[in-house]
Amino acid sequence: GMTSVIQLEECRERIRKELDTVVDFWLRYSHDPDHGGFFNCIGRDGKVYDDLKYVWLQGRQVWMYCRLYRTVERFHKPEILEAAKAGGAFLRRFARVSGGCGGDWKCAFCLTRDGKPVKIQRTIFSECFYILAMDELSRVTGDTDMQVGIISKTFTLKTFTRSLFCLCSLQRSRPLRSLFVQSLEANQMMEQLIYWVQEDASGLGRPQLAGDAPTNNMAVPMMLLCLVHQITEGRGPDVVGKYRKLGCWCVQQILQHIQRNGTAILENVSPEGGELPGCKGRLQNPGHALEAGWFLLQFSAEQSDQVLQRTAINKYLKLPFQDGWDKKHGGLFYFLDVDKHCPTQLEWNMKLWWPHCEALIAFLMAYKQTKNPELLQRFFQVYEYTFSHFPDCQGGEWFGYLTQEGKVALDFKGGPFKGFFHVPRCLYMCESILDDLLAEKT
Amino acid sequence: GMTSVIQLEECRERIRKELDTVVDFWLRYSHDPDHGGFFNCIGRDGKVYDDLKYVWLQGRQVWMYCRLYRTVERFHKPEILEAAKAGGAFLRRFARVSGGCGGDWKCAFCLTRDGKPVKIQRTIFSECFYILAMDELSRVTGDTDMQVGIISKTFTLKTFTRSLFCLCSLQRSRPLRSLFVQSLEANQMMEQLIYWVQEDASGLGRPQLAGDAPTNNMAVPMMLLCLVHQITEGRGPDVVGKYRKLGCWCVQQILQHIQRNGTAILENVSPEGGELPGCKGRLQNPGHALEAGWFLLQFSAEQSDQVLQRTAINKYLKLPFQDGWDKKHGGLFYFLDVDKHCPTQLEWNMKLWWPHCEALIAFLMAYKQTKNPELLQRFFQVYEYTFSHFPDCQGGEWFGYLTQEGKVALDFKGGPFKGFFHVPRCLYMCESILDDLLAEKT
Repeated sequence: GMTSVIQLEECRERIRKELDTVVDFWLRYSHDPDHGGFFNCIGRDGKVYDDLKYVWLQGRQVWMYCRLYRTVERFHKPEILEAAKAGGAFLRRFARVSGGCGGDWKCAFCLTRDGKPVKIQRTIFSECFYILAMDELSRVTGDTDMQVGIISKTFTLKTFTRSLFCLCSLQRSRPLRSLFVQSLEANQMMEQLIYWVQEDASGLGRPQLAGDAPTNNMAVPMMLLCLVHQITEGRGPDVVGKYRKLGCWCVQQILQHIQRNGTAILENVSPEGGELPGCKGRLQNPGHALEAGWFLLQFSAEQSDQVLQRTAINKYLKLPFQDGWDKKHGGLFYFLDVDKHCPTQLEWNMKLWWPHCEALIAFLMAYKQTKNPELLQRFFQVYEYTFSHFPDCQGGEWFGYLTQEGKVALDFKGGPFKGFFHVPRCLYMCESILDDLLAEKT
Repeated sequence: GMTSVIQLEECRERIRKELDTVVDFWLRYSHDPDHGGFFNCIGRDGKVYDDLKYVWLQGRQVWMYCRLYRTVERFHKPEILEAAKAGGAFLRRFARVSGGCGGDWKCAFCLTRDGKPVKIQRTIFSECFYILAMDELSRVTGDTDMQVGIISKTFTLKTFTRSLFCLCSLQRSRPLRSLFVQSLEANQMMEQLIYWVQEDASGLGRPQLAGDAPTNNMAVPMMLLCLVHQITEGRGPDVVGKYRKLGCWCVQQILQHIQRNGTAILENVSPEGGELPGCKGRLQNPGHALEAGWFLLQFSAEQSDQVLQRTAINKYLKLPFQDGWDKKHGGLFYFLDVDKHCPTQLEWNMKLWWPHCEALIAFLMAYKQTKNPELLQRFFQVYEYTFSHFPDCQGGEWFGYLTQEGKVALDFKGGPFKGFFHVPRCLYMCESILDDLLAEKT
């Protein structure tokens, strides 16, 4: 092939080192020994500049630690497991806010350092990351004792009995210990999520307004598909079977975002798959479409669905890259308008770290599945831009927000939407795919 | 003095021409002949790129048209009056959303072109701009017949009787015609606002959360002070007396934002006037502080309060300018952190049009009140930057959003937060102050 084994090896080496640095950064600076959980707002030098704890980021960090601990030998360290467990305990103790419209399952968006709720979003994402964390945590702590009492606060006899029934039908042979509680929580919250998304969203607390057209926002089926993947991965045919239909539904919902005769991915469409009017209908988020792309590639591989694989590559990888890549300065735009109007988001032309993370995963995964060298070239194009712009060689970790020209505009390492997630997930997945590719070649 | 009459005259000429161009732009492109009200999302070339109608901007445009019609001879044209009345009718017909937690007085944030509610904010600002519009409208239509029936939809006998009582005690001698309905609405909604701000905010629909510390956000007393000024201006001693206490309360609330031993204005403080922790507590918005500055200057002039005048200039004009002016590229930053951390707002280093508008008003008003030439120098410094960066010489009107370096980042003329308000208010007020200054000099 055009690309030598040496080039792939160098790339893997760089990625591996970068992952070590990033893990190190968060182990060193983000743990709160006093209240548990993780600091999210961390400056360029590692100092905490705000002690608020964002539930999305708490859940994501628990998930990422567990995933690294469970699947990467060099991260199978007690320090990482303990941090994940402490984060999980913090979440289970404080994230769920009772008394709101969403019943016991609604989670806060943001908590004080000691766990008091600061803000609740009227969406499903805090809950999604809570589930992601709990499911992965149950996979690493299945063999340890956990304190069931920790959730007794919100756990009534009635829900307990009902859950016991669900769980027993799900996992008949497992002992009823910590694994039980986590899976059970994740499972129950998942049912609630599905109800909010597919049946009735009024429990989220958003009033239904006559002018607010029902919308299929791509984030929702993407997030659910991510959860389906998480919950079913490596599990028995009963669990896989239970979620197959939901997975297919998510894929269909995502595919509705192919618009304009197959020439564009739009972030928001009508529930019937039509284009919505105005800015909302014309909005494009290239990084998000690329992320959807690798979710679809993953699903297509599980289902051996070659048609879906082709669609994922042609529509969710090539189109967003073609329109979203800044030909002048390099990098992916954050938002675009399909009719070339100026987006109304002030940050539309900024270069954010996470779309580049998603692009790296997407192109490398697509190359692994197809061996099409054009896809590897795209990967290296994004790789060059990403590694020459985002990592902070001095302080470690990555900057998150650049101007269109590629200058650092916000210099913190962690903030309300940037935590221990996109960067390590990207590095972890790319390293693992490169391992596979190199194993094939040698 | 250092500045010649000729320089002031040239400046007034430029400002007058600019105001004519801006009024022209909105008269030409923003009116909706089919549904009433105004288009807000208008591209650089005048084309409507989204037909959503934002209630803040609808109210502001009604106010601005009425104010120009009423107080500037060259704008005393039927075309402008008709547009204002049509905007007012649209607002009164559609802005208020019944059935929400706020009762009949809660307004939507955003409406469809034909007036269906799209979004409701859990704040008081839509209501504030509604009142601003209605009060000013009642001043220009006091001598014309208006259709009382237009608000019958949300107007029950009970509220009618109660309002009649309020109004009669307020304005005993006026005839009960259109003026009646508008003043009455404004008055009733004002009472509701004061209740939300001073007594109990739960009617706004935001759940009270244990970790969400009570906050004095500077926007709230500023907005109320703006309304007090509007409602009392030129009115009799009964009305002025009724709102005097509220005005003083607003001023006290605004003055609580002087922090760090008098060296900084912070956007959010505790209700007791202490500093709040974290990013929220350290946030600075120089343009907003400058706007508060001229609100205070206006109040100090009305009350002949020289101590307040000095405080306004030293704290609300000089400090925000000193910290907020970009020494490298010129222009005012949007957000800063008082401890020099990087703000978490992605747009923190952008140069927005409206802080520059507020700065122009503030420094010119301060100069008029004090004749301190340093303040006129500041005015001209902001004037040079503003007029060389924001106006679009080709298409008319101003760009709203520049990069830190001063390049146009978003090229539309109207958007969800930019309408017919900050630019014309600034030009109108500066022209009027320059008229006064020049009248004094000659």
